[in-house]
Amino acid sequence: MGVLYPVEEVLLRTRSRYQEIEVLVLRGFGKTLVLDGLIQSSEKDEHVYHEALVHPALILHPEPRRVLILGGGEGATLREALKHPSVEKAVMVDIDGVVVDVAKRYLPEWHQGAFDDPRAEVLIMDGFEYVRSASMRGDAFDAVIMDLTDPYGSEVAARLYTREAFSLVKSAMSAGGVLVVQAGSSTLFAEAFEAVYRAVSANFKHVYEYDVWVPSFSYMNSFVIASDSYDFASLTGGEAQRRIEERGLRLRFLNGERLVAMRAFAGLRLG
Amino acid sequence: MGVLYPVEEVLLRTRSRYQEIEVLVLRGFGKTLVLDGLIQSSEKDEHVYHEALVHPALILHPEPRRVLILGGGEGATLREALKHPSVEKAVMVDIDGVVVDVAKRYLPEWHQGAFDDPRAEVLIMDGFEYVRSASMRGDAFDAVIMDLTDPYGSEVAARLYTREAFSLVKSAMSAGGVLVVQAGSSTLFAEAFEAVYRAVSANFKHVYEYDVWVPSFSYMNSFVIASDSYDFASLTGGEAQRRIEERGLRLRFLNGERLVAMRAFAGLRLG
Repeated sequence: MGVLYPVEEVLLRTRSRYQEIEVLVLRGFGKTLVLDGLIQSSEKDEHVYHEALVHPALILHPEPRRVLILGGGEGATLREALKHPSVEKAVMVDIDGVVVDVAKRYLPEWHQGAFDDPRAEVLIMDGFEYVRSASMRGDAFDAVIMDLTDPYGSEVAARLYTREAFSLVKSAMSAGGVLVVQAGSSTLFAEAFEAVYRAVSANFKHVYEYDVWVPSFSYMNSFVIASDSYDFASLTGGEAQRRIEERGLRLRFLNGERLVAMRAFAGLRLG
Repeated sequence: MGVLYPVEEVLLRTRSRYQEIEVLVLRGFGKTLVLDGLIQSSEKDEHVYHEALVHPALILHPEPRRVLILGGGEGATLREALKHPSVEKAVMVDIDGVVVDVAKRYLPEWHQGAFDDPRAEVLIMDGFEYVRSASMRGDAFDAVIMDLTDPYGSEVAARLYTREAFSLVKSAMSAGGVLVVQAGSSTLFAEAFEAVYRAVSANFKHVYEYDVWVPSFSYMNSFVIASDSYDFASLTGGEAQRRIEERGLRLRFLNGERLVAMRAFAGLRLG
């Protein structure tokens, strides 16, 4: 199926080396970043997506200090990661500098100054190459957040959803590190999702799916969360809520109850 | 926004006194009932919608004997209600006999013989008129399930989403009765949802929203559940699961964990 969004205004339409980039105003959803015709995030519900992507992993880790973000050009993933007071360093690696420039200019509501945070380092390069170097120098990220375009999209992104890529990611993580991967829709694109899930499972001990409805996507977005040390299924809603409060996280969508609820819809398949 | 569904086959396209009725085969979703251009339920995920509609209310009630269904022409709501072994009588009232005939002929996977169950009574008449008579004769339904087209749709349905209608419904219920109402999307059509919620709240003590993603709808469908005696928010996942098992319910989607999870997404608003 396809979704039709009434476009109220075209703020930008351009093309980088990697993709077509649009900033549109969509009726009902406001300002929206669209890459290769697919909605990445809209003003009205980007907080749902970004909070659901970032916080389960960072809450699961007792004290995340070093965070790596692959993709996340809008800067909202960076914004959410930096909310955790224990974070000393957040490295964001996006291959497409044009997207980052577009975000800086057109999407201030997304990054909200995150790019200027002294703890943030933004690198424009291929995430695969970054992860390879990081694994070789024995980097020790406590959390890795993969916020890439969908696994059934471009070849550049596809390479980061492989067993080999997750193995490199793991080598660049601390022993108690937590990985989270945005992985499209496990219901509508079950095959692609399952390939990602298997590739992660080949590398980590505790691996789970969780899902959140992002209205502008028209579907529940699926995530894969993984760690050798921390078991996401054992994190109770009460404990999650306690950590949210303890860390002073100011969230608009996520709370302990919703964190647990997002786990319950894993494995929803058609027919 | 609008959703485009590739149509593989048109099995039926007709018009009743009340609405345009289509039975289509949609790519990815299979055979699908469409009324006035809006998807009512598809072969691949009608179980998600119908289990989420029926069972929270019937599980919340300790021993539902008499059930009233308003709408539900496909017969799948009836099918789910009849799964509860305590149910002695299930009255289904649909205004549109053509929809029921179409369901009998084209949608056997939906009703699965429910129309022939000796406990079922199917009436073709205006639900509002039925409820008015039932309230006058002091009927005592333990559960009322309102499975109508959306509150922002036809005038015929709209009349059943009013404070007056819910007051009549309540008068036709037993003291411990439970009401559940399909109420569109509280996120995408917040105003219409809130009007329904307020109208129910004017009549019942314990009133809650819960939501489930129905892939073919492209959104989370919202429900309002209400009772003077039973507090849905107090029903734990463990107790719900215990009742599911005790009653021998064979479900494909719902379990105790998901029942609780459906409550957690209430109140999701854009922006």
